[in-house]
Amino acid sequence: MAGIDPNLLRKAAIFAELERPSLQRLAGISTLVSVSETTLLCRQGDQPDRLYVVLSGQVILSNTAPNGTSAVVEVIQPGGHFVLATLLARLPLLLNAQAVASSRLIALDAAGLLQLLQEDPGIATAIMRAEAMDFSALVRQVCDLKLRTTAQRLGCYLLELSEDPAGNSVAFRLPFDKRLLAARLGCRQENLSRAFAALRSFGVETHGARVILHDIKRLREYALPDSLDDAAPA
Amino acid sequence: MAGIDPNLLRKAAIFAELERPSLQRLAGISTLVSVSETTLLCRQGDQPDRLYVVLSGQVILSNTAPNGTSAVVEVIQPGGHFVLATLLARLPLLLNAQAVASSRLIALDAAGLLQLLQEDPGIATAIMRAEAMDFSALVRQVCDLKLRTTAQRLGCYLLELSEDPAGNSVAFRLPFDKRLLAARLGCRQENLSRAFAALRSFGVETHGARVILHDIKRLREYALPDSLDDAAPA
Repeated sequence: MAGIDPNLLRKAAIFAELERPSLQRLAGISTLVSVSETTLLCRQGDQPDRLYVVLSGQVILSNTAPNGTSAVVEVIQPGGHFVLATLLARLPLLLNAQAVASSRLIALDAAGLLQLLQEDPGIATAIMRAEAMDFSALVRQVCDLKLRTTAQRLGCYLLELSEDPAGNSVAFRLPFDKRLLAARLGCRQENLSRAFAALRSFGVETHGARVILHDIKRLREYALPDSLDDAAPA
Repeated sequence: MAGIDPNLLRKAAIFAELERPSLQRLAGISTLVSVSETTLLCRQGDQPDRLYVVLSGQVILSNTAPNGTSAVVEVIQPGGHFVLATLLARLPLLLNAQAVASSRLIALDAAGLLQLLQEDPGIATAIMRAEAMDFSALVRQVCDLKLRTTAQRLGCYLLELSEDPAGNSVAFRLPFDKRLLAARLGCRQENLSRAFAALRSFGVETHGARVILHDIKRLREYALPDSLDDAAPA
């Protein structure tokens, strides 16, 4: 049954600035979905029938090439969404989406959303901006892969995860395991270990999933992240 | 002055399947532009005011990070277009576009295009599909960078450039110089030389810009390109 509390939709970065009536319209085509770890939410090649927003947990987006190799394109954290571009174009899905933790999601009906795009200019603007931001996140990732070493990419990613630290140091837990971190960064696991070792000289300490950045300024100078403004996770 | 021969628009892959009346509407908001090598057509950060289609020549899309490093995201060949996503979202440009050869282009007025999107469902569908295809090209590039070695990436790119060879061998010229090829592949020039050397064992012969693939089957087995269907250049 469709229909959820409109306030839940505010947790989606793409809907955060919508007016109440628009949120209510979206709530009317939404359902809540709870899935366990490893649940496949979208399958590459299928026709997209829902836009998902992650409320809790996390979901990996991957692409499997015809030769069978598979790459992790992105890891979607709470507040993030998938998979918009193919849904808007009514084209088959390009990505698999799989929960890698117990996750709670909002599922918006694709046909309902395409209808609301015609009727509500506020929703249309939010959706076009969301698509452009997804696009921009991919461009940033292409540049990241072309310009930075694995150690720099890891440094940038750790800085991104440690958002808004008050001082020059911060401690946090990696939101997923190192196997997945290596896949997201596009390196083999042994290279990830080497990258963590290289970052030790820049004040990066790790104990399992726990990470301490002792000297954020120094790490930034080494990893050369993009500006803080546009470092928002996709 | 706006207004061009509608048939010219058929050269754009994104408009190839449009009906004549839609092409005529697009022609009414289009102008022809001829630029010399090195002309900057779009500047990152500016508001997009035109969608471009390349008729001849070539244009590189690059992104400059706040730290000053710059990456070549894509090289647009005749038939290709840029930059759509930011234009549709009315957001500042994410990419610089610079001609790297004397080029002839169609420039479509942004405001006129956004208006036609509302009025002509055929154009709206073509544009949404174009955006999804741009998105898909970036996803493929992210996967390519994450999964393949430089030599494999070079092999895939050469196979893509050699489209539809009749037999198991083909000769062609690189459409741009090796400095730019290295930037597009995301490697340093010395790594590109090493990659070309590595591909010699798979029947790849080069003399300056001239490339001969002596054993396409063997090269495909090594480089593991995506399927032919979706290997269309972006």
